[in-house]
Amino acid sequence: MAAKISGSVLVTGSNRGIGLELVRQLSESLCPPNQIFAGCRDPNGPKAKELRELAQKHQRLITLVCLDTTNQASITEAARVVGAKLKDGSLNLLINNAAVNIPGSLAETGEKQMMEVFQTNTVGPMLLTKEFLPYLRNAASQPGAQSEMSCRRSAVVNVSTLIASIEKCPETFHGAPMYPYRVSKAALNMLTRCLAEDLKKDGILVMALHPGWVKTDMGGPEAPLSTEESVKGTLNVISSLSEKHVGTLLDWEGKGIPW
Amino acid sequence: MAAKISGSVLVTGSNRGIGLELVRQLSESLCPPNQIFAGCRDPNGPKAKELRELAQKHQRLITLVCLDTTNQASITEAARVVGAKLKDGSLNLLINNAAVNIPGSLAETGEKQMMEVFQTNTVGPMLLTKEFLPYLRNAASQPGAQSEMSCRRSAVVNVSTLIASIEKCPETFHGAPMYPYRVSKAALNMLTRCLAEDLKKDGILVMALHPGWVKTDMGGPEAPLSTEESVKGTLNVISSLSEKHVGTLLDWEGKGIPW
Repeated sequence: MAAKISGSVLVTGSNRGIGLELVRQLSESLCPPNQIFAGCRDPNGPKAKELRELAQKHQRLITLVCLDTTNQASITEAARVVGAKLKDGSLNLLINNAAVNIPGSLAETGEKQMMEVFQTNTVGPMLLTKEFLPYLRNAASQPGAQSEMSCRRSAVVNVSTLIASIEKCPETFHGAPMYPYRVSKAALNMLTRCLAEDLKKDGILVMALHPGWVKTDMGGPEAPLSTEESVKGTLNVISSLSEKHVGTLLDWEGKGIPW
Repeated sequence: MAAKISGSVLVTGSNRGIGLELVRQLSESLCPPNQIFAGCRDPNGPKAKELRELAQKHQRLITLVCLDTTNQASITEAARVVGAKLKDGSLNLLINNAAVNIPGSLAETGEKQMMEVFQTNTVGPMLLTKEFLPYLRNAASQPGAQSEMSCRRSAVVNVSTLIASIEKCPETFHGAPMYPYRVSKAALNMLTRCLAEDLKKDGILVMALHPGWVKTDMGGPEAPLSTEESVKGTLNVISSLSEKHVGTLLDWEGKGIPW
């Protein structure tokens, strides 16, 4: 069954892995959204070839957006470009997917690694959400908008991970120490929860999603889940979000993960 | 009853608030530790007057240490100075107390605020723990060391907060939005949990502690708890830590807080 995600969607980090597959499945859905904005650092560079081909195939649906989530000027410019194209100035769904990982044992980790990964994985989603907030608010308050919270009205989905669960750290740590990544994603979970509380008065649903351990550049070849399966589940979960999911962390099958 | 904390102790951010009171109660205990190292940015400056007076009163016990936890060179130099004075090169207890807070509504918070608070509150404790790890390991493996984990053998206590609880965020958010502080302290909780897993093989106990909402420069005058009460409870909790407290978040009365 195709996930029902309508209106306008912005996906960050969309040139590879889960981001690329999100754009692909959204655009190839039987019932696609009206507008898909696919953000990545360098839409004209060699690392965005597949995304460009996809956008070429769905020219009326997909707009490529130059977006470096670690650079405020780039975020501001992306918001201007996207804002000018949005119907009624409304963005219905922001998927903060852009993230980095680096080798991260205690010995490998210093100030530089901690700060860089935090900037991309935690501060990036915050700056994006702040910058696109006027469009998300517009979407939530459209005269025709549903009164129920949903991804069709207005939502922010932060791509998080099981290994950001502080509770489950003793189970997962030794298989994947990754200090900077874990710390940044636990921080993202707190950011998600704060934004969820802050923005529910505006009718904007904020939550975090663990897409599973996926065969991507980041997940590596030994991961159990294909990108296709992960994104199919992820989009089903996003499409069924409602008020009870505000501020939750769910996996790609919709199961809750403890903080 | 005086808390039993023996051996050598390093407290960061010790020139005011909870840090200063920790040094005071430790030094005035009927059964004080052998060595107290009191770290702060500028031990000779006007903001460390009370600490200097305390150190003057307990000259054989307290050593003032110039330590800026946001500066790797300062941390390295502090470790050299402290290391040269430690008996058997052993540090038994590191209390990562130094922290900052700033006004932090969504409107007030940008990249600069997020990065600065993360650097002090999260990266600082990581760099400190890494730099002092050889001394903590020495303490844990001394021939006369207890086989049980404790603050008398080797421990790292990270000063965290109730409002770092992601679980409890919906209850606490609207009273104190504080994005940078909450995010940095949730990140510190994950760091604590990672270090706890990583270092338990070495016999080093790592945990996080919420000292309560305390009448300090940071807590403000309307806080319900005096610094004296908070630190008395905190030291009692630290003194009774054992293996079952590895990787926990406890309040000043020893009660667990969910992540």
